[in-house]
Amino acid sequence: MTDSSIEQSTTYAHENSSRYLGQFKELLRIPSISTDPAHKTDVNRAADWIVSEMHRIGLHNAQVIPTAGHPVVYGEWLQAGANSPTILFYAHYDVQPVDPLELWESPPFEPAIRGDKLYARGVIDNKCGVMVNLQAVESILESTGKLPVNLKFIFEGEEESGSPSMEPFVKAHKDLLSADLLVSSDGGSYDKDLPKVFSSLRGLVTAEVGITGPIGDLHSGSYGGVVHNPAHMAARIIAAAHDDQGRIQVPGFYDDVRPLSTAQLEDLKQQEVYILDQARQETGLDVFWGVPDYTFLERQTAQPTLDVNGLYSGYQGPGSMTIIPSKAGFKVSMRLVADQDPDDIAEKFAAFINSFTSDTLDIQVNITSKCWPVEALFDGPCIEAVQRAFEATWGRPALLYRQGGSIPIMGMMQRELGVPITNFGYGNGGNGHAPNEFYRLEHFYRGIDSAIHFYHYIASAF
Amino acid sequence: MTDSSIEQSTTYAHENSSRYLGQFKELLRIPSISTDPAHKTDVNRAADWIVSEMHRIGLHNAQVIPTAGHPVVYGEWLQAGANSPTILFYAHYDVQPVDPLELWESPPFEPAIRGDKLYARGVIDNKCGVMVNLQAVESILESTGKLPVNLKFIFEGEEESGSPSMEPFVKAHKDLLSADLLVSSDGGSYDKDLPKVFSSLRGLVTAEVGITGPIGDLHSGSYGGVVHNPAHMAARIIAAAHDDQGRIQVPGFYDDVRPLSTAQLEDLKQQEVYILDQARQETGLDVFWGVPDYTFLERQTAQPTLDVNGLYSGYQGPGSMTIIPSKAGFKVSMRLVADQDPDDIAEKFAAFINSFTSDTLDIQVNITSKCWPVEALFDGPCIEAVQRAFEATWGRPALLYRQGGSIPIMGMMQRELGVPITNFGYGNGGNGHAPNEFYRLEHFYRGIDSAIHFYHYIASAF
Repeated sequence: MTDSSIEQSTTYAHENSSRYLGQFKELLRIPSISTDPAHKTDVNRAADWIVSEMHRIGLHNAQVIPTAGHPVVYGEWLQAGANSPTILFYAHYDVQPVDPLELWESPPFEPAIRGDKLYARGVIDNKCGVMVNLQAVESILESTGKLPVNLKFIFEGEEESGSPSMEPFVKAHKDLLSADLLVSSDGGSYDKDLPKVFSSLRGLVTAEVGITGPIGDLHSGSYGGVVHNPAHMAARIIAAAHDDQGRIQVPGFYDDVRPLSTAQLEDLKQQEVYILDQARQETGLDVFWGVPDYTFLERQTAQPTLDVNGLYSGYQGPGSMTIIPSKAGFKVSMRLVADQDPDDIAEKFAAFINSFTSDTLDIQVNITSKCWPVEALFDGPCIEAVQRAFEATWGRPALLYRQGGSIPIMGMMQRELGVPITNFGYGNGGNGHAPNEFYRLEHFYRGIDSAIHFYHYIASAF
Repeated sequence: MTDSSIEQSTTYAHENSSRYLGQFKELLRIPSISTDPAHKTDVNRAADWIVSEMHRIGLHNAQVIPTAGHPVVYGEWLQAGANSPTILFYAHYDVQPVDPLELWESPPFEPAIRGDKLYARGVIDNKCGVMVNLQAVESILESTGKLPVNLKFIFEGEEESGSPSMEPFVKAHKDLLSADLLVSSDGGSYDKDLPKVFSSLRGLVTAEVGITGPIGDLHSGSYGGVVHNPAHMAARIIAAAHDDQGRIQVPGFYDDVRPLSTAQLEDLKQQEVYILDQARQETGLDVFWGVPDYTFLERQTAQPTLDVNGLYSGYQGPGSMTIIPSKAGFKVSMRLVADQDPDDIAEKFAAFINSFTSDTLDIQVNITSKCWPVEALFDGPCIEAVQRAFEATWGRPALLYRQGGSIPIMGMMQRELGVPITNFGYGNGGNGHAPNEFYRLEHFYRGIDSAIHFYHYIASAF
């Protein structure tokens, strides 16, 4: 396709912007709260609404696909020809609950514009990911009659409920979902002036450890010195999990860690200054911490972690209570990086915990969740296509952002479908899981432009 | 004095036993709950009642001595002559609260006899210590006209409130309280067939440690690897406080520990079998723990301890919450043995904690209480006198019991008055801090006999 095709498509989008906003508001009015069984019908209604919209704009094979939970919406356009790549887009149409309702300045499911922002539950997380893509498709099809690439859309209905049905869904529909590139549209810009592309996500293993000693709390005078204190064992295990400089001591933990490339290291170095500023503000800390062999951003995004999230034993109220506690316990989250296997790490962690077993204390370890890290695209033709789209619509390339956190279904989809992955959203908003969720109106319109550009540029990346 | 004097005194006691029981019940009817301001008048009423009783039986200088809290009752009989020793007796007339009231089978301040037991709040803890001593005095004075030793009594009114006024009281009345031996009557037998003499009490230092990191809980994905986790520091400190076998690693902690004598070690060895049985029942444990250089009873009573009583950080509810906690903290009790100085141990502990201070975490340590260990009499003429009294009235000598717990005022009085100390009560009861507190009636009467014998035998111990 040509630059004139892009111009025709964006002109169409601009001419139809107020209709597009109206259609966006229609979807926003449906309270598709996936965690609340009372909103099951609303979730289905949102799925049906999207399928109708897909039919209307000319997507094919549009359908609501049931799962054990909320349905997935699927639609495709595969007429670009066998030489054109197929891009699979992911977004989700379910939304967070709205509590506390009294903090909303306008009702969460009555979209309202105040200043330059559009307020509604789900507006940024992630109904914009659904609508911006569909309206970019409509703009291109209406203005040029065809799309530059083959497209597949899957829009999930239970992302805010932890995506319990996505793994069985993906495993059961590998052919339907086969593609050359997976693009997740569930994301946002770094700030209102800087677009962002996720280039990695960390994996996750969570666990709980429980330690039991005497049948009840004991008097620390009567039994101090002769009864093994479960709190001491909890401390001993946790202390043994790191060396003094923060290196994880679980045997074999680092075996599969993939080193960053020179280009990735150089890119991280350039990001460090302003990300450190943000980190200081969010944490209230002047001095950070971690394994001294790595930079701040490497430690935050390219090295695995093991953190205690919660820890308890004995008496925690005011004043003293001189007991030997009967029990102690702690919760742990481990963030993984490519190419660590969550099953392998879970096993190594459990073996580490079990190595503390003694005849004086009972120790139990329970792995509570696991997900894969994602090493998304960092460079190459696809990323060049993304950056051309952002340069054209934002006037600057996106930050290639390594994310310290985890999105379980991304790693799952990448592995199940064996497909390269990139993840970027369409602009800036906020309060995604809080009252007064918003999306900058200008970014909504610009998002459609970015998508139109991306669809064109990605066509020649394969 | 002679054996016939003892016989005259015990005969008098036996002839007056039902009157003695009636007088005991009078004191038991006064609800002298020291922790409850609503019972302040009752505490005073109990003090006045005891002073009247002292006057009636012929004690001298009997008086209620005010303190900043509840008053101390004092009385004396110092006519035994300058060559006779002076024995200072301690007991307390205040009682525990009665909640939960609905679990009492008879009202706590209406003494009731069921089977072989007398039920009332305070009957064993510790109004028996007051009445048994006074009725032994009455029996001797009425039957022989004089006491074999000089006696002083102090009966405290706020033991159940932690004795806040006793240290200033003792410091202000050192002359009044001067004596050759301090006997605490706040105690009981080992079981219903075996009397008990406390030969040691451990001291106590309690402390709280607070560790603060970021201004709020942080996302463990966003900040794992770069923010120092306060829970990890809590664990590192606690783990560093002991070696793998339980030896306390606070520098200098053991400097002043007094080794047991060969006789004490031999005595402990003989006690170990049946005390281990009791310990297994109370703890539900088959295997005990501790520094392998010592026996169970040495570790329990003659070695100091450092135990975490409570420990907290982050999220403790169900499921996982993948945070780096903002704070962590723990409470510690350290049990001390002769000749450890609680001020010195508190300083050493604080220095140990402060040695973990870093530029990434704020660590605060707060010493919340301190008391001295007590090394009471283990052998010599005074203990021989005690044992003669028990052999005469129980048919067997008392267990010389090393107590793992602490009684703060004992160490304080021993040090302030510079006096040897022994501690034994008059028989067996139960539920001292619970509903249906009781005292075996037979032990009440036998207690008066034991006291009469002890007063006679102790006269020749100096």
